[in-house]
Amino acid sequence: MSWDSVCDSVCPIARSLAVVGDRWTLLILRELTMGVHRFEALQAQTEMSPHLLTKRLRRLEKDGVIERRIYQERPVRHEYHATAKGKELDPILLMLRSWQRKWDGDKPAGEPAVHLVHKVTGKTIDHLSQTPSGGVGFTFDDLVGTVGPTFKLERDARIDAFEELVKPKAKRSAARKT
Amino acid sequence: MSWDSVCDSVCPIARSLAVVGDRWTLLILRELTMGVHRFEALQAQTEMSPHLLTKRLRRLEKDGVIERRIYQERPVRHEYHATAKGKELDPILLMLRSWQRKWDGDKPAGEPAVHLVHKVTGKTIDHLSQTPSGGVGFTFDDLVGTVGPTFKLERDARIDAFEELVKPKAKRSAARKT
Repeated sequence: MSWDSVCDSVCPIARSLAVVGDRWTLLILRELTMGVHRFEALQAQTEMSPHLLTKRLRRLEKDGVIERRIYQERPVRHEYHATAKGKELDPILLMLRSWQRKWDGDKPAGEPAVHLVHKVTGKTIDHLSQTPSGGVGFTFDDLVGTVGPTFKLERDARIDAFEELVKPKAKRSAARKT
Repeated sequence: MSWDSVCDSVCPIARSLAVVGDRWTLLILRELTMGVHRFEALQAQTEMSPHLLTKRLRRLEKDGVIERRIYQERPVRHEYHATAKGKELDPILLMLRSWQRKWDGDKPAGEPAVHLVHKVTGKTIDHLSQTPSGGVGFTFDDLVGTVGPTFKLERDARIDAFEELVKPKAKRSAARKT
């Protein structure tokens, strides 16, 4: 089956997979929930090629899942943000997080990659309080996230590797700010 | 980023994508929820190559998401079934269904591909009663599904195309029974 024919299926699950059923796509959406909105920073964290990242961002924009916002006029530079439609995928990311934590355990044990707390209830979002079959009634907008030390090291290492790869020394640490 | 490095991430969302963040994988899981458990029937409905389907089934078995069950001894033949871990992905499939129906409308309008009714409450599961941000508290085991006429035609056409492609005339309609 080509994905064109999946897009034409009457089954909404198949059609949704044509939009978001790509690992890179969901990884991009995860980055957006973490406040990463600029092309180079997205590239650093996902380690995608510029060509593939451009392709996925365009597709997501076309599907109404993300939108571009200008953050600099000369030259024009864009940030990428999830739309309302895109934010309604947050519960799916949260359920995948919960599912993975429940079934495979944490690495390293006990330390979440991102410690998530509900803004209103103050409750920690973990695999005990929120299993996939228990449902999710919120999005990342309702949560405050604190990146854990191990995940912080992993993310910083990706920024360093990216800068090493593509930038002259003088411009380093730009990606770190976004 | 290679998917090997995604598997090693401390982020559970990234690791879950290494298991299920593949369109084919989720399409296979959708088929299992629809009572399609045999290799050839899975091949017919997903239109995957035997090589790719074998690869994905092996990966899912290795990850504990599906299990093989013998249904014939001589020669040995297996069916593929979701494990408890796999069934906990049902809410994610249901949320993708709901998300797609909400944001892109139905094809054709008003007719669900599969009409889903909760066994206990008798309530229809649609994009009004169950939005992604509203959560899902059940799996496909709790639901009775009736395939709509348009989706039935689409599925029958795939079986016909598959049988045309791979089977001698005498053996036709075997895939239809599974």
